[in-house]
Amino acid sequence: MLEGEPAKAIAEVAAKVAEHRPKHVVFVGRGTSDHAALYGAYLTEIRLGIPVGLASPSAITLYGARPDLAGALVVGVSQSGGSPDLTEVLKVARESGALTLAVTNNPASTLATTAELSVDVAAGHERAVAATKTYTAELLALLLLVEGIRNGDGTPAAEEREALAKLPELAERTLGEHGADELAQRYRFASRLVTTGRGYAYPTARETALKLMETSYLPALAFSGADLLHGPLAMTDPDVPVVAVVGSGPGGSSMADVVTRLGERRADVVTIGAHDIAGASGRLAVPEVDERYAPLLDILPLQKLALSLALARGEDPDAPRGLKKVTATL
Amino acid sequence: MLEGEPAKAIAEVAAKVAEHRPKHVVFVGRGTSDHAALYGAYLTEIRLGIPVGLASPSAITLYGARPDLAGALVVGVSQSGGSPDLTEVLKVARESGALTLAVTNNPASTLATTAELSVDVAAGHERAVAATKTYTAELLALLLLVEGIRNGDGTPAAEEREALAKLPELAERTLGEHGADELAQRYRFASRLVTTGRGYAYPTARETALKLMETSYLPALAFSGADLLHGPLAMTDPDVPVVAVVGSGPGGSSMADVVTRLGERRADVVTIGAHDIAGASGRLAVPEVDERYAPLLDILPLQKLALSLALARGEDPDAPRGLKKVTATL
Repeated sequence: MLEGEPAKAIAEVAAKVAEHRPKHVVFVGRGTSDHAALYGAYLTEIRLGIPVGLASPSAITLYGARPDLAGALVVGVSQSGGSPDLTEVLKVARESGALTLAVTNNPASTLATTAELSVDVAAGHERAVAATKTYTAELLALLLLVEGIRNGDGTPAAEEREALAKLPELAERTLGEHGADELAQRYRFASRLVTTGRGYAYPTARETALKLMETSYLPALAFSGADLLHGPLAMTDPDVPVVAVVGSGPGGSSMADVVTRLGERRADVVTIGAHDIAGASGRLAVPEVDERYAPLLDILPLQKLALSLALARGEDPDAPRGLKKVTATL
Repeated sequence: MLEGEPAKAIAEVAAKVAEHRPKHVVFVGRGTSDHAALYGAYLTEIRLGIPVGLASPSAITLYGARPDLAGALVVGVSQSGGSPDLTEVLKVARESGALTLAVTNNPASTLATTAELSVDVAAGHERAVAATKTYTAELLALLLLVEGIRNGDGTPAAEEREALAKLPELAERTLGEHGADELAQRYRFASRLVTTGRGYAYPTARETALKLMETSYLPALAFSGADLLHGPLAMTDPDVPVVAVVGSGPGGSSMADVVTRLGERRADVVTIGAHDIAGASGRLAVPEVDERYAPLLDILPLQKLALSLALARGEDPDAPRGLKKVTATL
């Protein structure tokens, strides 16, 4: 996707958005795509300096809110592009004068055709009900989009393209690691789990918790590192495994203190990162990259962890109970 | 607070905000105050038609994002007004041209003095570490503020004032019910719990989960009714109690389907609302009000539930492990 038609198509969309100069950006998504939207929100605020918010569709779809969105860019993120509530939000936003953009894996979907602009994440047919490859494709599409907007002409800057070009090989190397399978054995009999991360790593913590819940039916609570210190910390004890995403950058640095405090409570902390952290009992190794790129790599061993754990617990991750690819919420 | 000095002070602030006509609103808060902020976000979008977002402080405090917030209203919600990260967000927002507003229980706090405008929720000295009365005071202050902005002159419209005037008596009646104490016995040996609600009721579901975690160390997962159907539903089974907030209005109507589907999975669902719902095994009774006011009442039996459950499990809700009133996150 870094070269070729999909990247070119994203560059065209990014150039149009850059020209439009949105005053603020609103993201909407559900489930896994909501976590990709959260990543997009961090990128937008940090890399573009544009204020950003995540919208609750229900204000519009249930209560008939008609916010004045002139000057805004409203981005709907959805694997299938088939969620009626997101489509409704984009329709209302477009009518109120917002620039609307759909980020989906299906350019022929209702969401994509409702929005003025559409990005195809080009993941190919998603066979996993847990939508794992679509998630990383959504992250990459949002990254290309934001960096293209930042550079003005729709294409990421030269040094950015250089860093992006290294990601496929880094991803392949990350997928080759076997730590996740071993970790699944450790969590075989866990009755619950806490995931945590800050900044760019927070979407990874949320997405990990969701995959563990969807495929292993393991109750997993995701907290930003900051919120965890506000009270739920009391809930962690030696029986509760904590998975902490600790990158190499400001988010990771601020997590070191969280890991130390968890260690003081004798919580069993496993980190995902490039370096060992004091207080943690183990680590899933990922290559060292700027925290901005880390979400594309960090989620890979964690998706593998969800898969291995589901199999270890005798579940079928390809046919999870109660999960559908398109969920119709009105 | 509905009459007298605190209400007058809120009306003055509301009139100033109305005059300023913000293009969009950004809320920031942590923990319990984040849930009040979420309520404020629904009110802002539905009652004022102003687009709204919840901000992640870390984009600004960790990654140095400097979003252009000219034309925006940025609202920081905090019991103590002492969180350094929220203060930093309001400082940056004010420098970038936003109108800034602090909603706190301490008008002398750093957050309140950093913001251009300040609302005192006037809850009096908060003795509960779990900050229960502050939460309802924050909700009421945000409601008065939004209705005052809606009416233009800072004071809620006459019919609105009439509805608001009934709330204290309804709250008293709700507090007189004993269903929560009985429900605590039922959950005495639960190992985890799910809370859910949609729209205006979603902040209640989140706040309930947090209180149960903080005081009873019971892992509680909060989901919007819509997100619950997206996968985590699979996790619910007869062993997992579900607390569903089902109001009388659009949010509640859309929850009926969620409760039915939970019932099909033989989950043990208890609702909070004015009417029995098919598929639920019990209900905490609250008076019938517009869903807009329900968060101020629905949380009361749920706070009592957290209290009773903590006592039933031999915990001390006044001295929860690991919880402080002011949490310093940078």
